[in-house]
Amino acid sequence: MTKKIAVLNGPNLNLLGSREPDTYGSTTLDEIQQMVVDQSNKYQIDVDFRQTNIEGELVDWIQETGSSCDGIILNAAAYTHTSIAIHDAVAAIGAPVIEVHLSNVFAREEYRHHSYISDVAVGVICGFGANGYVLAVDAIASMLRAN
Amino acid sequence: MTKKIAVLNGPNLNLLGSREPDTYGSTTLDEIQQMVVDQSNKYQIDVDFRQTNIEGELVDWIQETGSSCDGIILNAAAYTHTSIAIHDAVAAIGAPVIEVHLSNVFAREEYRHHSYISDVAVGVICGFGANGYVLAVDAIASMLRAN
Amino acid sequence: MTKKIAVLNGPNLNLLGSREPDTYGSTTLDEIQQMVVDQSNKYQIDVDFRQTNIEGELVDWIQETGSSCDGIILNAAAYTHTSIAIHDAVAAIGAPVIEVHLSNVFAREEYRHHSYISDVAVGVICGFGANGYVLAVDAIASMLRAN
Amino acid sequence: MTKKIAVLNGPNLNLLGSREPDTYGSTTLDEIQQMVVDQSNKYQIDVDFRQTNIEGELVDWIQETGSSCDGIILNAAAYTHTSIAIHDAVAAIGAPVIEVHLSNVFAREEYRHHSYISDVAVGVICGFGANGYVLAVDAIASMLRAN
Amino acid sequence: MTKKIAVLNGPNLNLLGSREPDTYGSTTLDEIQQMVVDQSNKYQIDVDFRQTNIEGELVDWIQETGSSCDGIILNAAAYTHTSIAIHDAVAAIGAPVIEVHLSNVFAREEYRHHSYISDVAVGVICGFGANGYVLAVDAIASMLRAN
Amino acid sequence: MTKKIAVLNGPNLNLLGSREPDTYGSTTLDEIQQMVVDQSNKYQIDVDFRQTNIEGELVDWIQETGSSCDGIILNAAAYTHTSIAIHDAVAAIGAPVIEVHLSNVFAREEYRHHSYISDVAVGVICGFGANGYVLAVDAIASMLRAN
Amino acid sequence: MTKKIAVLNGPNLNLLGSREPDTYGSTTLDEIQQMVVDQSNKYQIDVDFRQTNIEGELVDWIQETGSSCDGIILNAAAYTHTSIAIHDAVAAIGAPVIEVHLSNVFAREEYRHHSYISDVAVGVICGFGANGYVLAVDAIASMLRAN
Amino acid sequence: MTKKIAVLNGPNLNLLGSREPDTYGSTTLDEIQQMVVDQSNKYQIDVDFRQTNIEGELVDWIQETGSSCDGIILNAAAYTHTSIAIHDAVAAIGAPVIEVHLSNVFAREEYRHHSYISDVAVGVICGFGANGYVLAVDAIASMLRAN
Amino acid sequence: MTKKIAVLNGPNLNLLGSREPDTYGSTTLDEIQQMVVDQSNKYQIDVDFRQTNIEGELVDWIQETGSSCDGIILNAAAYTHTSIAIHDAVAAIGAPVIEVHLSNVFAREEYRHHSYISDVAVGVICGFGANGYVLAVDAIASMLRAN
Amino acid sequence: MTKKIAVLNGPNLNLLGSREPDTYGSTTLDEIQQMVVDQSNKYQIDVDFRQTNIEGELVDWIQETGSSCDGIILNAAAYTHTSIAIHDAVAAIGAPVIEVHLSNVFAREEYRHHSYISDVAVGVICGFGANGYVLAVDAIASMLRAN
Amino acid sequence: MTKKIAVLNGPNLNLLGSREPDTYGSTTLDEIQQMVVDQSNKYQIDVDFRQTNIEGELVDWIQETGSSCDGIILNAAAYTHTSIAIHDAVAAIGAPVIEVHLSNVFAREEYRHHSYISDVAVGVICGFGANGYVLAVDAIASMLRAN
Amino acid sequence: MTKKIAVLNGPNLNLLGSREPDTYGSTTLDEIQQMVVDQSNKYQIDVDFRQTNIEGELVDWIQETGSSCDGIILNAAAYTHTSIAIHDAVAAIGAPVIEVHLSNVFAREEYRHHSYISDVAVGVICGFGANGYVLAVDAIASMLRAN
Repeated sequence: MTKKIAVLNGPNLNLLGSREPDTYGSTTLDEIQQMVVDQSNKYQIDVDFRQTNIEGELVDWIQETGSSCDGIILNAAAYTHTSIAIHDAVAAIGAPVIEVHLSNVFAREEYRHHSYISDVAVGVICGFGANGYVLAVDAIASMLRAN
Repeated sequence: MTKKIAVLNGPNLNLLGSREPDTYGSTTLDEIQQMVVDQSNKYQIDVDFRQTNIEGELVDWIQETGSSCDGIILNAAAYTHTSIAIHDAVAAIGAPVIEVHLSNVFAREEYRHHSYISDVAVGVICGFGANGYVLAVDAIASMLRAN
Repeated sequence: MTKKIAVLNGPNLNLLGSREPDTYGSTTLDEIQQMVVDQSNKYQIDVDFRQTNIEGELVDWIQETGSSCDGIILNAAAYTHTSIAIHDAVAAIGAPVIEVHLSNVFAREEYRHHSYISDVAVGVICGFGANGYVLAVDAIASMLRAN
Repeated sequence: MTKKIAVLNGPNLNLLGSREPDTYGSTTLDEIQQMVVDQSNKYQIDVDFRQTNIEGELVDWIQETGSSCDGIILNAAAYTHTSIAIHDAVAAIGAPVIEVHLSNVFAREEYRHHSYISDVAVGVICGFGANGYVLAVDAIASMLRAN
Repeated sequence: MTKKIAVLNGPNLNLLGSREPDTYGSTTLDEIQQMVVDQSNKYQIDVDFRQTNIEGELVDWIQETGSSCDGIILNAAAYTHTSIAIHDAVAAIGAPVIEVHLSNVFAREEYRHHSYISDVAVGVICGFGANGYVLAVDAIASMLRAN
Repeated sequence: MTKKIAVLNGPNLNLLGSREPDTYGSTTLDEIQQMVVDQSNKYQIDVDFRQTNIEGELVDWIQETGSSCDGIILNAAAYTHTSIAIHDAVAAIGAPVIEVHLSNVFAREEYRHHSYISDVAVGVICGFGANGYVLAVDAIASMLRAN
Repeated sequence: MTKKIAVLNGPNLNLLGSREPDTYGSTTLDEIQQMVVDQSNKYQIDVDFRQTNIEGELVDWIQETGSSCDGIILNAAAYTHTSIAIHDAVAAIGAPVIEVHLSNVFAREEYRHHSYISDVAVGVICGFGANGYVLAVDAIASMLRAN
Repeated sequence: MTKKIAVLNGPNLNLLGSREPDTYGSTTLDEIQQMVVDQSNKYQIDVDFRQTNIEGELVDWIQETGSSCDGIILNAAAYTHTSIAIHDAVAAIGAPVIEVHLSNVFAREEYRHHSYISDVAVGVICGFGANGYVLAVDAIASMLRAN
Repeated sequence: MTKKIAVLNGPNLNLLGSREPDTYGSTTLDEIQQMVVDQSNKYQIDVDFRQTNIEGELVDWIQETGSSCDGIILNAAAYTHTSIAIHDAVAAIGAPVIEVHLSNVFAREEYRHHSYISDVAVGVICGFGANGYVLAVDAIASMLRAN
Repeated sequence: MTKKIAVLNGPNLNLLGSREPDTYGSTTLDEIQQMVVDQSNKYQIDVDFRQTNIEGELVDWIQETGSSCDGIILNAAAYTHTSIAIHDAVAAIGAPVIEVHLSNVFAREEYRHHSYISDVAVGVICGFGANGYVLAVDAIASMLRAN
Repeated sequence: MTKKIAVLNGPNLNLLGSREPDTYGSTTLDEIQQMVVDQSNKYQIDVDFRQTNIEGELVDWIQETGSSCDGIILNAAAYTHTSIAIHDAVAAIGAPVIEVHLSNVFAREEYRHHSYISDVAVGVICGFGANGYVLAVDAIASMLRAN
Repeated sequence: MTKKIAVLNGPNLNLLGSREPDTYGSTTLDEIQQMVVDQSNKYQIDVDFRQTNIEGELVDWIQETGSSCDGIILNAAAYTHTSIAIHDAVAAIGAPVIEVHLSNVFAREEYRHHSYISDVAVGVICGFGANGYVLAVDAIASMLRAN
């Protein structure tokens, strides 16, 4: 049976490609979506790819896709470091969540070193740019095979 | 004259009953609403019961019901610990606010021990599960009688 | 069968009524005892009401009433914030403990924001003045009914 | 050619005039808008003046006006102190941002002393009440002249 | 009319003279009592001089002498640094309290640098050994004259 | 009647123009003085403009001009972050004080984020380079008109 | 000549056997007393074994037995972590003090990791349950032999 | 031309399979080596796979393979959190380093949340068990293709 | 032989009487000087009374009077909390130093609770207003008699 | 059947006897080994006694003796306070570990107060000099009897 | 051409020889000046040697000699740890600055471990007593040769 | 008689010349050895020059050369900031130790500001690159002459 994953993106990721390319690379979010869809097709996994700047909408989406999907790839961007609400949403749902960051957050400001998501996520992939999403698809595919 | 209170619920409380029942109990938010309405009826108090996952919507509602209601029972959930905006909204309005938590937040993670709401709320009730809302109705009724 | 609760009060609460009425209200401890007894009578619950300024005597009483009563309402006042001994006593006994404070401790000095009791209490009620004791009787009655 | 600036206001600023006038003054947000428009007219600058209680909407607006306007006057109110998302939005856009606060935030609670916006803003103006917006118009006009 | 002061001494001060004379001097508590009485006689002030090792007994005595005496000289010794209960007792009473320490607490362990009493005492005298009590009598006599 | 303001500058500001121009700009202190005088002339305000490297001399001048002038523009430079003496001087005088910084101190070292002056100043203007002094003249003129 | 030691036990240790047996074991305090007496008999050491819930009484006993006994085995329980008064008593007396804890306090809550007693005790034995008292008798016997 | 990577493993990883399988899984280090070799074969990458318990030996190996290999997969285990020496070695070499952890270190003790390696590594993969090594091979293969 | 003491006053104390009388009282520094001279006359002690706003001048004076006087009464005001230079001067000289504060610094801002002088002073007297200087004269006279 | 224990000693313990005898005593490590062997003979326990200055070698030995011995007495010396690798090794093995320190680490530098070993050790014995090893043999013998 | 260096000394260094000789040695500042002049003569370097107790005068001198000399040897004594103004002066000038301390500041009070000068100085020499100045002359001579 | 010193180098110093030359300079460790030997020859001092990446080997060498040499020049590199074992070794030996760093560690990452060696070393020389070793030879020669 076809599996389905959600890829949920947080604030300012819609600016990718133009926003601070030294930090975030020159790939746009549309291009990342295409990379994720291509990689997921290899595993016959459908992809629901979204972006929002609103913390509460991320909470809504995690709740919604947490019951309708087999896994979530979550790049909560800045909300990673400030949102207990997103932590609680991830903890509340059944589907596994993989935390992804484009940049190596540990090489940036001190306040980006702590994540409210990591301790309820399955795992974390960061620093590999757009390719990190592809690795996350591999990881989730591997987990779905194992179950 | 009939009094009116608002009961405002924050992020992930819509999941009650299914979400981590060891921590939050098995009562759903609908059942809590019924308990609040039943108890309020004893005091002839009308109830406006709402839930949202969006911080700013909570701010909107506190502003709105802060002038249209005689009191607010507020369970801001995760935003309790991170939202100065909600603190400011509570401080700005005239109606008294009672802070309620289902779980005993003090027996949980360190970051749930601090509330941005407590110091502008009338009082705090936490750890009594769904019954905490009923106690809050009692408390607000007692305050309204006293005025 | 008649139930029994203990209401244990800590240091300086014997001064209630005269002590800093802006913070603690003008109700005396005797009047609070009467309110508690009246409310408990509604549930046919007997009340053992005491006050002491000595930390170790609170420990003694928690041990003693923890086995002889069905529940404890505990206002440890200043010892709330400094006494691991009281924490250990509450943790050691079988009877449920409800933590009560007259004032909203979270709106006062930083050192009153932490309680050594909260994480081993069933729940916390604070900021409602003398009425907080009455709410605690309601809460404990509700818990005793549920068992 | 006519220049254009955005004036973006954060949570609870819609209450100005009625909300804690000791802290925030008695001028309403509409009156501030009028002051800003009047002052901008002197420099032939158009003004896009908005207010929202939702963090993510501020992010949306900073992104939008960051490319359509020549500068932004930003009073993010409570989100100033908690929002890395707004920090990231300000850092991502091309237009210069001036941070304004009505009250002297440094004379208030400790948690209002830190701003996530200041280090990516051009400068900060605080404590001058409604007049701070007028000074910010002067500042931005001066910068636009200099370019 | 004859004035009356209480001189209340906390834990381990009964050992004075034998206990770590390098830190506390070789004067015994009895000798200090005599010095206090002698100095008070000059001002026709009666002295009630006591010592206890029990925190709650100090609270009892502060409450009691706070209404029966015109002032209190308080050396709470180790409880100075840990007792919010004593802080609350001093804050609750009407009589002025002068905090005295034999040793210069600021030249000792870090945990002796903070006092829960100082901010509700009239003033602090420390480091003058037994003579500090005599200076405190002078200070209190001066205050009583001024009233 | 002609108003008078003092503009008091702290340590190393005499080096402006040559000192780290990336941080402080290429305008000299003499040029800033000229800009301040020009702007003040528009409001018929006399200017007393001074610089010193000595903390205590700043204290002297704040005391002196605090009674002889209608307002002070104060750039205490490095002493901003270390001087309680200057804080006390500002708090002691009657004239309003506006705190100015050339650079955006919040985008620099951690130890430049705290100011001992801000909480007793009317307001703060920072990050606008030499133009910040001009804005401060506007601000003080506006305040003087309002009185 | 027969030697004598005191074994002084602090708050809640009277509950041993029934209190949280996972943490404290199932041995009662009476049984521990018997073990201590048996082991001491091997060395012809007399034992004075006591328990109290009152901090100040522990201070009294340390003072008293500090001059009448050849050594003290002290399990101050919760007061270990909060009592400077007990620290001062131990520092004031001549007899050596051995600090004992039943549980491994370092594997428990953060606030049990610091002891006010350790730095004035001869040594610390913790984590061996009731057997820790026996080891302490061995240790004190060895010290008495060495003198 | 054939590429070569080193996979360097730190302290206690030789125990994998038997050591705390709830945390680290039941796969042995030999099995992980086989998984890495198999995956690397797909990309025609040779693998140099090692383990040591000695911090300085890890430093030696990073220096050695940093010049002889095209990339390093580094699981420094406990030294991740304490070794500036390893940080310096990674910073000194030319080859890219990917940091891998079997467990989700962010869901474990506080002292495992900080890594001295992350800020000089290309990226971090953690929480995926043995599969994390396979993902790291994918990541490094992708980087080598891109160059 | 006639003894001599220096009374050294730090920044802003020249404003006494007019400066924040709620905090510092209405007595002027000249009046305090008179009180000190009067009291010293009783003991046939000469007084050298000075005030400066400059930290380094206080250092100069402590060095100078430290060898020419028999004791120093030092109210370093704001420099108390920031000056290691004054600490070092006090530590370097032979004459005993008594630290005096008019206000109860412990009841004020957090940053006034620490003194760099206390640990090298003989003792501290604070909170007694102008009378604190008189008590300090008594204290120093008593010390000089004892030598 | 004969039991076997390992006694593993960390850095600088080979210097015992000559190294800072005020802190560590005058007994050499060879003499301690003899004391341990003598005491173990009483219980028919064989002893494997080693010392190393290399952290990773301690890890090796803990792994090795953790499976070949019935218990370990571990004095990791300075590595106690810095080595998560040793913590992990102790946590990974089956044999019980007793932590021993010659000196009372709690009476020394702050950085010696925390141990990475204590929370995974059975218990801690410190401050008894060489005799602490003998007590540890008693403790381990008692544990082995109990199993 | 003859080179020139300045040797600038901060507060209390004029007391050298008499001040706490255990910490600072018995060499006077005049003797140090002679040692510096002698050593500089070897390199044909002229010396401008000064001392002041006033922070702002040090700032003046650093500015002045920073343009007239080829290098500065700076012992700012107590101001090292508190003066951002001196930090800014050192950062502003062109000449290289070598930081010297007589005592090993790292073996003294915690508050002497941080220097505001080190990060803008070329290097630091401390703990070698008067000889540290001679080493600094060597170091500066070596740097001047290298340019 | 010929004197002898050891020069002990810690982790990654073998890479000098190639490793981050902006931070560490382009001089190799071999060249530094030659500079040290040349300078020592002037004083007829023999040099034992070593490097290791292993913390425990540094401990071994400090112990060994601490008795066979007249002084040690120690650049422990990264272990400077993490190794209590090296601190203990330096404290245990008789020979004086001079701490050297090539770079100005105080101008680098926060975690390089603290040294576990400084408080037991004679003195510290840092920031002078390879020349720091030469200065250390001068310093040690001066000390050996003085003895």
